[in-house]
Amino acid sequence: MTSSPRKSRKPRNYSPLGLHRVIDPPGVLPQAAWQLDADPAIAPDEVRVRVDRLNLDAASYRQLREAYAGDPDKIRGAVLEIIATRGKMQNPVTGSGGMLTGTVEEVGPGSPLGLVPGQRIATLVSLTLTPLVITDSLARWDGRREQVPCEGHAILFARSIAAVLPGDLPVPLALAVMDVCGAPALTQCVVRPGSVALIIGAAGKSGSLSAAAARRAGAAKVIGVVPTEAEAALLRETAGLAGEIVIADARDPVGLATRVEAAGGPADVTVVCVDVAGCEGGAILSTAPGGTVIFFSMATSFSAAALGAEGLAADVTMLVGNGYVPGHADLALDLIRTTPGLRALFERRVSPEGDQS
Amino acid sequence: MTSSPRKSRKPRNYSPLGLHRVIDPPGVLPQAAWQLDADPAIAPDEVRVRVDRLNLDAASYRQLREAYAGDPDKIRGAVLEIIATRGKMQNPVTGSGGMLTGTVEEVGPGSPLGLVPGQRIATLVSLTLTPLVITDSLARWDGRREQVPCEGHAILFARSIAAVLPGDLPVPLALAVMDVCGAPALTQCVVRPGSVALIIGAAGKSGSLSAAAARRAGAAKVIGVVPTEAEAALLRETAGLAGEIVIADARDPVGLATRVEAAGGPADVTVVCVDVAGCEGGAILSTAPGGTVIFFSMATSFSAAALGAEGLAADVTMLVGNGYVPGHADLALDLIRTTPGLRALFERRVSPEGDQS
Repeated sequence: MTSSPRKSRKPRNYSPLGLHRVIDPPGVLPQAAWQLDADPAIAPDEVRVRVDRLNLDAASYRQLREAYAGDPDKIRGAVLEIIATRGKMQNPVTGSGGMLTGTVEEVGPGSPLGLVPGQRIATLVSLTLTPLVITDSLARWDGRREQVPCEGHAILFARSIAAVLPGDLPVPLALAVMDVCGAPALTQCVVRPGSVALIIGAAGKSGSLSAAAARRAGAAKVIGVVPTEAEAALLRETAGLAGEIVIADARDPVGLATRVEAAGGPADVTVVCVDVAGCEGGAILSTAPGGTVIFFSMATSFSAAALGAEGLAADVTMLVGNGYVPGHADLALDLIRTTPGLRALFERRVSPEGDQS
Repeated sequence: MTSSPRKSRKPRNYSPLGLHRVIDPPGVLPQAAWQLDADPAIAPDEVRVRVDRLNLDAASYRQLREAYAGDPDKIRGAVLEIIATRGKMQNPVTGSGGMLTGTVEEVGPGSPLGLVPGQRIATLVSLTLTPLVITDSLARWDGRREQVPCEGHAILFARSIAAVLPGDLPVPLALAVMDVCGAPALTQCVVRPGSVALIIGAAGKSGSLSAAAARRAGAAKVIGVVPTEAEAALLRETAGLAGEIVIADARDPVGLATRVEAAGGPADVTVVCVDVAGCEGGAILSTAPGGTVIFFSMATSFSAAALGAEGLAADVTMLVGNGYVPGHADLALDLIRTTPGLRALFERRVSPEGDQS
């Protein structure tokens, strides 16, 4: 901890959610705000981070690249303009942000995050709610990829989750793991020993971690669903991750459920990890009465899930995959370290060729 | 997929899920279909119902009313057009349907529903997957309410849930109760004795039933959120339904959470029963760590819930409200019969003036 006095440097009320940083419109949550105050002076429960890299959300970067026809100068200018105007990196078109890495610079005496100056960290909350200032005009960014080397500072609130970057894993790998770490954490909470777990999208990042988490939770059988033979081959290389591999289109409920049943289903717990729309019915239909479906795909439609279960008279519990579960980053990093083959599978997903999920 | 042991009246395969009724696109579940075959000739495991009333989903009716500025002729025309085109009543904008009542007309020899011709029933599966034909041009509907008197027929599949209408309650009341009966059933499953339950939209149909269910489950405190003083007065008349009444805009997370806390929150279980968008953050923020949010509003955004919880670092379990829980209709009807004042509150919601939901 720093030796700063237990006195606020700012003569105002402050909140663990960062409400005191909201400029416009007043009274909303930081994520919903148009503009945040990114003043480097911290409140007693805040942390200031020296930022070295932004990892833009894929949807946000794609929108910028398309809007400016791939022109690096214009893309860079647009990102700088957004951050300068809004005090945070939130693409006004997509509404999405991303995450950042940096070094802890100053820790308020009331911060509950347990951080220490000098630690290298990654934020696990979105850039859409993180006060941010860029000071190097993004001069080192070529505008051609989502990872943006930069200089500047960011503010963490009392309830902003951050993780210390592990020393034994490359930063891009650790970031990719942390980005999806909510999925394995919730999977491990829900799967009971002896049960059948079904992972839809089992060769992807969140899917492979969730399969490993299901095994660790004691699942008697893990069925992995993949869309193609190539993905199945990838999954087979990771011996033991999924005992049964099913090649199926998850958007086809009847086809999926039929194949899952042949592989030892229906499942007690189904985890949906594919970012394509229309997988709700198949997930529900592949789950046993009394079972649970966890939706981690951002392409999930709430009404399709709710009405789908009703329409199938399916007695299943359906969970919205919460990206935050206490201890989620440590759990996921531990799975990567200890599950044979998982790291190799994951690294192929992190490489430029393997960004499908 | 089924190899029928009996003889089908239709020279085609049939399935308990109604796959044989799907025209476009082929191979999807009936709910996902753009168009169903509503032919009155039934398969051996189907039931045909003579329909006398539709109960449109609140979100669907509101969308139609707003799209046509409340013009009854245009609303009626739009509903007729949807049913004629799609072979079912599924609002293309909201994706939602509703339910129906009618009289059992013909029961296939292989139907497992246990129905007998002449029984007055209500469907508990959505209109979004129920083959439907209207034959009276909705001439008796004034277009001013969700309940639509009509003539026509509908088809129930082997897995379509239906309930025989109770003899001791008026049909519009029983129908309105059954329409939302999944909410109190799931609420009763989730609320633990001694806990704090928060019902957002507590003076509405699903909200008032859920409040009663929370009480029955042994909640130590039930906090009811309503948007206006008028709604609060309505709720106060139903003595004991909500021990604390909070008037707040549920779309304002900070305002809602502050008021809920003052009323004895945060909640262990929060039930979202209001059909307006943007209530996810407030519900999450009003729920204690380790608590549960049940989303019953069809206006819920999956990504707003998932990203909202992550952005708030909220350790909450979020459930997609499943409209089907075994025994849900009987439970809800029992609550209406036995909870003092609930029936009176509910009847005001069913009356023409009280259609807010």
